[in-house]
Amino acid sequence: MAEAKKEVRLVILAKFKEDATPEKIEEAITEYAKLVDVIPAMNKFHWGKDESFRVNLHLHEGYTHIFESSFDSYDGIQEYEDHPEHAVFEQLLLSRTEKLLAFTYEPTIVNLQK
Amino acid sequence: MAEAKKEVRLVILAKFKEDATPEKIEEAITEYAKLVDVIPAMNKFHWGKDESFRVNLHLHEGYTHIFESSFDSYDGIQEYEDHPEHAVFEQLLLSRTEKLLAFTYEPTIVNLQK
Repeated sequence: MAEAKKEVRLVILAKFKEDATPEKIEEAITEYAKLVDVIPAMNKFHWGKDESFRVNLHLHEGYTHIFESSFDSYDGIQEYEDHPEHAVFEQLLLSRTEKLLAFTYEPTIVNLQK
Repeated sequence: MAEAKKEVRLVILAKFKEDATPEKIEEAITEYAKLVDVIPAMNKFHWGKDESFRVNLHLHEGYTHIFESSFDSYDGIQEYEDHPEHAVFEQLLLSRTEKLLAFTYEPTIVNLQK
């Protein structure tokens, strides 16, 4: 099994405020996605909204959205955190969310037989 | 741009109990990973442990581990939830964790210029 290139991921869970309109939420997502193009250390980015109700799971703790980005190293995350465009985005996100959770990890991908 | 095949992801954040030994945690991870081979609807699986301290981010809310699995549909998650092997694993995980968070979503992958 070839060793995979090191990957570090940053998962953000966000609970947008009750009064955040769909347009304000959409704008925050767009601004987050734009960071991929301006911060070299940010390799990949995806996002989604909570759909727990579809599977009758009620353990999402009120978080409404997830954002996951990928870096080559912890230094890459630091570069992202320190980037001036990130600071601008962070203020926007903080102003529109009630709570945030950030989880940093190196994924171990389980090899599948299928 | 070709339309991607539908993908639904289930993210679990777990905080293992203080008295859960590394062996007990390792066993829980192994048992989770085994589900990929026994539950047809489960397409992919990866996990990781919290490394937030490396990037000076302190927003992980005490969660120690993340598990992410991938399905073709919400029905696939239901199949996973209803599988008897999942029920056995769930009891094991619940007995060793202080809290769990589950977030279900359809990822929107942002196309990169790089």
